[in-house]
Amino acid sequence: MKQKDLARRHRVTDGRKFRLEDVDPADTAGLDIEKDDARELLADSIKDLRKLQERLYAEGRWAVLVVLQAMDAGGKDSAIEHVMTGINPQGCDVRSFKQPGPIELRHDFLWRHVAGLPQRGKIVIFNRSHYEEVLVVRVHPEILEKQSLPPQLVGDDLWENRFKDIRAFERHLANSGTVVLKFFLHISKDEQARRFLDRIDEADKNWKFSFGDLEERKHWDDYMAACDDMIRSTARDHAPWHVVPANNKWYARMVISSVLTETLERLDPQYPTVTDEERQRMKAARDVLAHEAGL
Amino acid sequence: MKQKDLARRHRVTDGRKFRLEDVDPADTAGLDIEKDDARELLADSIKDLRKLQERLYAEGRWAVLVVLQAMDAGGKDSAIEHVMTGINPQGCDVRSFKQPGPIELRHDFLWRHVAGLPQRGKIVIFNRSHYEEVLVVRVHPEILEKQSLPPQLVGDDLWENRFKDIRAFERHLANSGTVVLKFFLHISKDEQARRFLDRIDEADKNWKFSFGDLEERKHWDDYMAACDDMIRSTARDHAPWHVVPANNKWYARMVISSVLTETLERLDPQYPTVTDEERQRMKAARDVLAHEAGL
Repeated sequence: MKQKDLARRHRVTDGRKFRLEDVDPADTAGLDIEKDDARELLADSIKDLRKLQERLYAEGRWAVLVVLQAMDAGGKDSAIEHVMTGINPQGCDVRSFKQPGPIELRHDFLWRHVAGLPQRGKIVIFNRSHYEEVLVVRVHPEILEKQSLPPQLVGDDLWENRFKDIRAFERHLANSGTVVLKFFLHISKDEQARRFLDRIDEADKNWKFSFGDLEERKHWDDYMAACDDMIRSTARDHAPWHVVPANNKWYARMVISSVLTETLERLDPQYPTVTDEERQRMKAARDVLAHEAGL
Repeated sequence: MKQKDLARRHRVTDGRKFRLEDVDPADTAGLDIEKDDARELLADSIKDLRKLQERLYAEGRWAVLVVLQAMDAGGKDSAIEHVMTGINPQGCDVRSFKQPGPIELRHDFLWRHVAGLPQRGKIVIFNRSHYEEVLVVRVHPEILEKQSLPPQLVGDDLWENRFKDIRAFERHLANSGTVVLKFFLHISKDEQARRFLDRIDEADKNWKFSFGDLEERKHWDDYMAACDDMIRSTARDHAPWHVVPANNKWYARMVISSVLTETLERLDPQYPTVTDEERQRMKAARDVLAHEAGL
């Protein structure tokens, strides 16, 4: 299994026929982390990523937006930690979108996400994103009321309009040189239970346990339906979703790392070049500096 | 040499008698990176830092602001890369303050820096900072004209007023739970020449070479005087400067890492604790989840 194949294996560029139930959350593409080859593939991929990120930063033409979505305990935080800790933090920011506050609620639903977009040369990770607006808000329409929208704009076509707006937003980003990579870390309902149990049983994980997460779990099927519709409606060539089997954390991390590496390789960013005229000026500067430093 | 001693060796908490010329940029506290003890001290320090940062994030009470200042080629970027790459990017952001744009110039000089402050639980690194307002702006007063200040506010006491404002700003941050750690990476003028020469001589460093930096080098003595005054005027107990000998990059990194580690150890952040009542509720939740997952 080559990195490129792994990156493409879970990519959805045309979501129209997509069904989440066709994806096995325990799939590992026949790889086994116990085997050295899988472990090495992950380590190599992260090493490549680090070098590519430096070129992306130096070139300063493309920006990369990574959108991470998952059910609670889906492994977003640990994926960020394990895949991105090797990256120079000067070139990579993480934005965690929690419940919006009163100021944010008075703006359109993309506003706070626009404010967090990457500048050229940078990778920004959205830990949760504008997609919560068609997930948690859809499962809990009472949240919508807090957004104080003019009533005539809240009709039956609200969700379809949001999908249209998101597609247009991401099309605009692509047109402007921001590569949009979306990941849905897909775990089974049983796997979520096992991870919640870990948080209860292991004292140093207790602080991660949330009773609110248990409440959300009761809406599992509604969330799955909303996810299905989200991926069907917003997976496009210029802004693909990657539906990543995530029951095995090591596999999910490997897929994310492979997608990032494969994408940056495709962009093939280059260090800025020096013109002949600049080279001449540098030669003159060289003499002055060497003289000053007594070299 | 213990980490704590190293952290304190270059700390200035009362700048009133400070003189930059008393600091040897080539000082390494008798350590030698070729010797294993120095190498291990750096690696251990970064490992400790990684664990402490996780606790800082989990506790979510303190924020840490790291201010990095240096002359051009002083090693700011590479210090960020080497000290912070091991840190979870979710807990650490870097803000690079370049020349202000037209919107920023129409605000007070702290405004854009305030917008970049860390939230609780996070470390933010200012790669250049509000201190440029008493360095480059002081050396080139023509920049001040671009700030469109009301003329009656531009008097002989302008710089002293800026120092007062900065002291009050940092006092406010300290009172609010943001720990302010300031670093001036101190290189000699000859060392700067050597680093510029490297950027000219090594093809893959060419893109880092800037003719503008050569112009600034002509004002070296003015910058040193402005730095002296800056440290004298703004080194305080609650917002110390660390004047780091930086001719040897490994030593500068070791000092930065030691200061961060020593500071976080002093804060001693704790994972949030669980009350007895919460523990009871978790026990009940445990049974439901285990049943659902068939465990």
